[in-house]
Amino acid sequence: MVETQHTKPAPRPSMVWDAWGVPAGQQELSAQIRGLLTQVFGISGDPTPRRDEGDVPLIAGTLTDTDRAGLAAITGAEHLSTDDLARLRHAGGKSTPDLLRRREPTPQDAPDAIVCPADHTQVLELLRYCAEHGIAVVPFGGGTSVVGGVDPVRGHFRTVIALDLRRLDTLTDVDPVSGTATLGAGLTGPQAEELLGEHGLSLGHFPQSFEFASIGGFAATRSSGQASAGYGRFDDMVQRLAIATPQGTLELGRAPASAAGPDLRELFVGSEGVLGIITAVTVRVHPVPETTAYQGWSFPDFATGAAALRQVVQAGAAPTVLRLSDEAETGLNLARSADVGGAPVSGCLAITTVEGSAEHVAARSREASELLTAAGGTALGEAPARQWEHGRFAAPYLRDALLDVGVLCETLETATSWANLATLKAEVTAALTDSLGAQGTPALVMCHISHTYPTGASLYFTVVAKQLDDPLAQWRIAKSAAGDAIVAAGATITHHHAVGADHRPWMSAEVGDLGVRVLRAVKRELDPAGVLNPGKLMP
Amino acid sequence: MVETQHTKPAPRPSMVWDAWGVPAGQQELSAQIRGLLTQVFGISGDPTPRRDEGDVPLIAGTLTDTDRAGLAAITGAEHLSTDDLARLRHAGGKSTPDLLRRREPTPQDAPDAIVCPADHTQVLELLRYCAEHGIAVVPFGGGTSVVGGVDPVRGHFRTVIALDLRRLDTLTDVDPVSGTATLGAGLTGPQAEELLGEHGLSLGHFPQSFEFASIGGFAATRSSGQASAGYGRFDDMVQRLAIATPQGTLELGRAPASAAGPDLRELFVGSEGVLGIITAVTVRVHPVPETTAYQGWSFPDFATGAAALRQVVQAGAAPTVLRLSDEAETGLNLARSADVGGAPVSGCLAITTVEGSAEHVAARSREASELLTAAGGTALGEAPARQWEHGRFAAPYLRDALLDVGVLCETLETATSWANLATLKAEVTAALTDSLGAQGTPALVMCHISHTYPTGASLYFTVVAKQLDDPLAQWRIAKSAAGDAIVAAGATITHHHAVGADHRPWMSAEVGDLGVRVLRAVKRELDPAGVLNPGKLMP
Repeated sequence: MVETQHTKPAPRPSMVWDAWGVPAGQQELSAQIRGLLTQVFGISGDPTPRRDEGDVPLIAGTLTDTDRAGLAAITGAEHLSTDDLARLRHAGGKSTPDLLRRREPTPQDAPDAIVCPADHTQVLELLRYCAEHGIAVVPFGGGTSVVGGVDPVRGHFRTVIALDLRRLDTLTDVDPVSGTATLGAGLTGPQAEELLGEHGLSLGHFPQSFEFASIGGFAATRSSGQASAGYGRFDDMVQRLAIATPQGTLELGRAPASAAGPDLRELFVGSEGVLGIITAVTVRVHPVPETTAYQGWSFPDFATGAAALRQVVQAGAAPTVLRLSDEAETGLNLARSADVGGAPVSGCLAITTVEGSAEHVAARSREASELLTAAGGTALGEAPARQWEHGRFAAPYLRDALLDVGVLCETLETATSWANLATLKAEVTAALTDSLGAQGTPALVMCHISHTYPTGASLYFTVVAKQLDDPLAQWRIAKSAAGDAIVAAGATITHHHAVGADHRPWMSAEVGDLGVRVLRAVKRELDPAGVLNPGKLMP
Repeated sequence: MVETQHTKPAPRPSMVWDAWGVPAGQQELSAQIRGLLTQVFGISGDPTPRRDEGDVPLIAGTLTDTDRAGLAAITGAEHLSTDDLARLRHAGGKSTPDLLRRREPTPQDAPDAIVCPADHTQVLELLRYCAEHGIAVVPFGGGTSVVGGVDPVRGHFRTVIALDLRRLDTLTDVDPVSGTATLGAGLTGPQAEELLGEHGLSLGHFPQSFEFASIGGFAATRSSGQASAGYGRFDDMVQRLAIATPQGTLELGRAPASAAGPDLRELFVGSEGVLGIITAVTVRVHPVPETTAYQGWSFPDFATGAAALRQVVQAGAAPTVLRLSDEAETGLNLARSADVGGAPVSGCLAITTVEGSAEHVAARSREASELLTAAGGTALGEAPARQWEHGRFAAPYLRDALLDVGVLCETLETATSWANLATLKAEVTAALTDSLGAQGTPALVMCHISHTYPTGASLYFTVVAKQLDDPLAQWRIAKSAAGDAIVAAGATITHHHAVGADHRPWMSAEVGDLGVRVLRAVKRELDPAGVLNPGKLMP
C-alpha cells in the first residue's frame, strides 16, 4: 500500500445557483431545435433572461450568535459562512422543479449557514453539536441531486445548516496491487480521477453528474455511471466506508466479501445523509485503460435491441458501456446532431465501448460483436459512440436552455426485469403522455437503457412538453402519474437518482411498512435527535 | 413468466446425527493416509466405533402440553415431533466441535420439538405464537452449519424449537427470459437444481455443503459456492426475499438494482435467523451450460499462483471456477489420490473451469489461459480439474474418518485484499501451528484460495493434528488464536461460514460497537421478545 502525500486536487467549480453547471457550459438552442420547438409545441424559442445572483431575495437566516460561535469553534470561523451568495449556492439541487422554483420571484429558501469541516473528526464534532442544540444538518457534496436530496429542510428545527464536504478532498491508501484507494467524500468526479490518474489508476464512474457530483454523494445515493456494464454501480465499487453519526463513528468493510452477518455497508450506501455522513470511501479502482474500442449499432426496433443487450449481458460478455436509445430518442439525437456519421435514420441506436488491455478489448469486442450481430444489430463504426462520449455530460445544459424558452423538460428513471421491460416502458410512457396531454400539453417522451444486469435493466425517460403557467404543478401531476405507474408495474421507483424528497411518497411501496419501520429504528439509534437531513428518504 | 405447477422434488435425505452426510458417503481411510498418519502423528489409524442413534442419552424435552397444542394447531399435529430421533437429528450443525461433542457420553442437548410449517403463513403464525409464549426458535434448513448456527440455544427461555423448513420446497415464478426463479427456503441444493433443471435452468451454487444445505440457509449465511468466480456469491444471486418476522412480513427487492435507499435485502442476507426467517428467495439463474472446459494448472509457488489468479480476475477474464492450493495442500491432494494424471509433484495446483455457450467457453478459456500462462502457470490438461470436481463434496466425510481415528481436523476461512493475502496466510498459519504446537500437537496447516474478487480473495485453511484427551479445549485454543490473528491482520472473520455462535467473540471487531448497536436496534424492532435464534450472530 502506498501512503500518499496529500496532493491537492485542482479547485472545484461551484455550480451557478439557478441552472446546471458553470457559465462556460451554457448552451444556446440550435436553429434545428428552435425549429422543432416551433413546429411541435408552437414555442417561439426566445429565452427569458435569468436573474443575477445579487438580485435574488433570500429568506433571512436564523443562525444565532451562540450557534455561530459554537460551530465556528469546531471548524474555524473562516469555514462558516452566512453570506447570501454562499447560501444561495447551497439552496438545493438541480431537479427541474428546483430550477423552476429558482425562477419564481418570491424570496428563496436557503440553509442558514454553510459549514465546511476539514476532516472526519470535525464532522463528528459538528454532528454532536447540532444534535445537542437542535440544528438540522443537510450534507452537501456537489449539489447535483435531482430528487430534492439537498433541499434545506428544517423539519421541526429552527435552524438548518449545509454541511459542505468539499474540504474532505484527500486521496489516501492507494493500493495498486489490490486495486483500491480511499477517497475523501468531498472530491468531485474529476478531482478523484485527477488524483488517481497520478497513480495510473481510474475509478471509471461517469454518471451524467460526473463533473460536479462528489464521492460521498455517489455513495449516499447509490449512483450508477455510464460504464456500469463494465465497472458496476458505485455501490459495487465500495469496499469500505467511514461514517460520522451523532452517536460516533462507523468503519465498515474489512474484506472484498464477508459472511460476518448483515452487510451494514449496504445500510449506509443509499442512506442519503439520513443515518450518518459518509466522510471517506475506499473504492475499487483499475489501471487507466490501455485502449478503448468504440462502436455504434443500429437495431430495427427497441424490442430487438433490448433482447440483444440482454443476450450479451447474460452471456457474460458485457462491454464497458452498453446503451440503447428508443426510436424517439434516436430520432431526436439525429435531429440535434449536425453530423452523426453512419447513424441510423430509423430504428434504434446503441452504443458500446470496451476498455482494458489490448488483449481484453480485442477478446471482449469480438465476443460482444458476434452476439449483437446475431441478435439483429448492424455495426455503424466508431463515430456514433465517439460522439455520444463527447457530449455525454451536456444534456443538463440543454435542459436549462429549454426551460429558458418555456419548455418543460425533465428526466426520470426506473429498473425492472427483462421480461417486464416492455410493459414498464409502455405504462410509464402512457402515464406521462396521458397526464400531460390531459393538461393540454402533448408530451414527447424518449427512453433509453443505460444500465444492464443479467436479470434486467434500467429505463431512463426524458419528457418534453410546453410549460403551462404553473409548470411546477403541471410536472407534479405528471411525476405522480409516472411514479404510480412504476409501482403498479412492479418496478423500482428509482434506479440511480435516489429517493430524496421527491420519491418519498413511494418508499412504503418500495420496501413495505415494516421495511420503513426498520429504517426508522436504525435512524433512532444513530440520530435520536433527528437532525440528519430531515424530510428525505423516510416517508 | 411461467407460473409453475408445484412439482415435488425428490425427497431429501437427513444427515446422520453425529457425522456429515448419509451412511452411503462414509469413507474408510486409505492405506496411504493411514501410513501418513502413523508417520506424522504416530496414530495407528484404528477407528473408534460410533454409537447407534438409539443408544444416545438426550436431555429431556420441556415442551408443555399447552404449547404442543398451540403449535400443532398451526401446522397440524403430524408436523410437530418430540421424538428422540427427530430431536437428535436437529441437535446442531457439523462443525468439528459439534461432532466432538456428539462423541461425549453425557446427555446430548437438543431442541424440545421439531416443527415443520407448510408455508410462509404458517411460519408467520409460529413466530407470533413463540414470541407471545416465550419459546426460542432456531430456524433449521439443512443443518450444515459449521459455526454453531443451529445449536439449540434456549437463551433465557424455557423451551426451544427447531423450525424445520423442509416443507417449503416449491419452485415458482420461473422467468427464463430474465433468468430468475423463486425457490422455497427449504429446498436443498440438489432439489433446487432438480426443479430448475426441468426448465433447462441452473442456479450454479455449489458450496461444499451443496448436497444437504438449503436455499434459505445459503441466503441466511451469505454462502459462497465453488463457482463463485463465474456466478458470484449467493448474495449476488439474490433478487428478492420473503421474510417472516414476529412483527410481520418483509418482501424486499423490486428490481435488479435500485437507488431507493439502503438495500434492506443486505440486512437479511446474512442475518442467520436472528432478525427473521427467510421463507423464499428469488434468485438469478442461467441456462444449464452447453459445455464446460476443464483445466489444471501448475504454479511454482503460492505467491506466483495468487498473482496469476489476481491478474485474470482484474482483467475481467475470470473462469467459472478458479482455485489455487498451496504447496502443503497440493502435496496432500497428491498423496490422497491414486492417480492424478499430470498433477504437479511440487509447486501449487490450480483448477479452472469455464462454463457457458460453446462460443463463450472458447473465448473466455483462451483469454484466461493466455493470462495464466503469461503469469507463470503451466497447463496440466483436464484430469486434475475433473478429479477435483468428482471429489469436491467428499472432504467432510474424510474429516469424519479422521476424527474417528483420533485426528483433529477442522477448517476455517477468511478474506482480505490481494496485497494483504500473503501476510494474512502467514499470520493465521503461525497462529494455528504455534497454538497447537504449544499444546504438544504439531499441526499440518493447508490452505487454498477458492473465491476471488478484483480487490482480493478468500483463504481457506484446513488444520490437522493429533487429538489430545480434551480435543474440544485443544481446538478452542487454536481457533481463538486464529480468530485473533485474522482480526489483527485486518481481514474478515469469516468469508462464507457465517458467524453463528463460534465467531461472535469477533463481531465487535468486525463491525464496531456502533455497528453492533445498529444490529440490535433492528432486532428490537422485528423481534422485541428476542425469541429468534438466541446466542447467534450478535455478541
